[in-house]
Amino acid sequence: VLAPVRNERLVVTTDAVVEGVHFNCAYSTPADIGHKALSVNLSDLAAMGAVPRWALLSLVLPGSWPVADVEDLVDGLSAQAGRHGVSVVGGNITRTDGPLVVDVTAGGSVQSRRWLTRSGARAGDAIWVSGTLGGAAAGLEMLRSGIRESASACIARHRRPEPRVRLGVTVGRARAARAAMDLSDGLADALRQVAAASGVGVRVDAEALPIEPGAREWWTSRGGDAVLAALAGGDDYELLLAVPAKGGRLRSVRRHVADPPLTQIGTFTKDARELVLVRAGNEEALPKGYEHFELRTEIR
Amino acid sequence: VLAPVRNERLVVTTDAVVEGVHFNCAYSTPADIGHKALSVNLSDLAAMGAVPRWALLSLVLPGSWPVADVEDLVDGLSAQAGRHGVSVVGGNITRTDGPLVVDVTAGGSVQSRRWLTRSGARAGDAIWVSGTLGGAAAGLEMLRSGIRESASACIARHRRPEPRVRLGVTVGRARAARAAMDLSDGLADALRQVAAASGVGVRVDAEALPIEPGAREWWTSRGGDAVLAALAGGDDYELLLAVPAKGGRLRSVRRHVADPPLTQIGTFTKDARELVLVRAGNEEALPKGYEHFELRTEIR
Repeated sequence: VLAPVRNERLVVTTDAVVEGVHFNCAYSTPADIGHKALSVNLSDLAAMGAVPRWALLSLVLPGSWPVADVEDLVDGLSAQAGRHGVSVVGGNITRTDGPLVVDVTAGGSVQSRRWLTRSGARAGDAIWVSGTLGGAAAGLEMLRSGIRESASACIARHRRPEPRVRLGVTVGRARAARAAMDLSDGLADALRQVAAASGVGVRVDAEALPIEPGAREWWTSRGGDAVLAALAGGDDYELLLAVPAKGGRLRSVRRHVADPPLTQIGTFTKDARELVLVRAGNEEALPKGYEHFELRTEIR
Repeated sequence: VLAPVRNERLVVTTDAVVEGVHFNCAYSTPADIGHKALSVNLSDLAAMGAVPRWALLSLVLPGSWPVADVEDLVDGLSAQAGRHGVSVVGGNITRTDGPLVVDVTAGGSVQSRRWLTRSGARAGDAIWVSGTLGGAAAGLEMLRSGIRESASACIARHRRPEPRVRLGVTVGRARAARAAMDLSDGLADALRQVAAASGVGVRVDAEALPIEPGAREWWTSRGGDAVLAALAGGDDYELLLAVPAKGGRLRSVRRHVADPPLTQIGTFTKDARELVLVRAGNEEALPKGYEHFELRTEIR
């Protein structure tokens, strides 16, 4: 039983992490998994400009999990909750014969007319992103190839993403952006979602992308395309912002929130069919983001 | 983004149903599963006296599920939401290599100091239950033994439980009970939980238990003990109430809510160690309820 924040709106969101899909128990500790399960939800609240307040933890637990590991998972989640002033107010635990599922619902509060959505971008708005791109996806590849250096920034990004709560709340309060979204399914996916919801097109400048240095090195040393990897890779819990071209309010936000840095990477355009990556003067199609399903329709 | 109900408290709850644990796709249609996933959450709100308002649906979906089945599941959940005035305001969908998990978070509202908890029962309070007991557990056994009569009340109770929303809200508003809980893990479990939280004992009268007629017939025709089955069987989404001995307010509730009927089945007692079933003048130990886990501690 909770007392709503006076005169504010309630923002609720839910997001699950699943063993074998979002994490692998060989690459992440139970505490990492708990940290991540909460963080992906705080990232969704941050993208709406909401102050996180409470969370519910729903654990779908294989019978084989030792109690001590369950405790470590809850400790990892609770520690991250504490850092963000979030109260874990309840939850549920149930058994499964399948993989571990950690499903979190988070609640936050936001002033009326100060929340951010995906649908407010206008042609001419600048596209900004926070922090760096592609780190988590490269970190996962490193882990898959047997690297276990916990000092790697990329591996840390995969294991322990940091939601941009302070940035999102500050942007929302200052009305510094017309639209926002987090990059949980990658930058390319977020660009497509915001463009579609807002009825605008996208032109992104490949050279401007703030690719995580370790990720750039990882992909280029393997003959890969670091730009495409950074656009398509998921699990970057940075924020995408649509900012009016003059951007005076965003400058003010940047004075208050120095970390993470913000980078302009392109422009929303008038033609909603335009989804373009500009590289060395040439136009390429924007890649797709991470997709959970290939949709199939079956006749029954 | 939701507007909290003015001057009321927010009640949030989360409960998941898992394929192979809470339902079997051979026994329940996708629409049944959707109905049940919401209903178990509405039952938790009802047990607190909260009016259900909104729900979030988190689907953890095997890649093999046809889109049409997913739509049927969502339709079953939405239809039940509509019957109870609940808005499905959002959710999440993710892939799994394991069984289907349908995790719902529900929000409700309740007036200050009018919510029901498990901890308020006092020695001397009467124990009441709503509706009938043991139907869902017998229905599951019928399905397991190959019976598919959808006309069976027991099978219907397993497939499409009905949460006691109106009863719970009316009891809470009238302050007609000192404690309440739903019977999701069975009557015996609920009795133990309320007794432990309230620091009281329990004496239950076996002859008074309102066992579902079809369940009684099913167990006795197989040489089983219908009383123990009704006490230990889970999935009865009825309400257990601790009611002051005079019970004047409950009489008033019963005039307003005729369905489901309410039955007095025993008394909360002073000695917290007492967990007794009285049958034909003899005292038996109260059986345990449904348990999701046998807890194990491992040394690492």
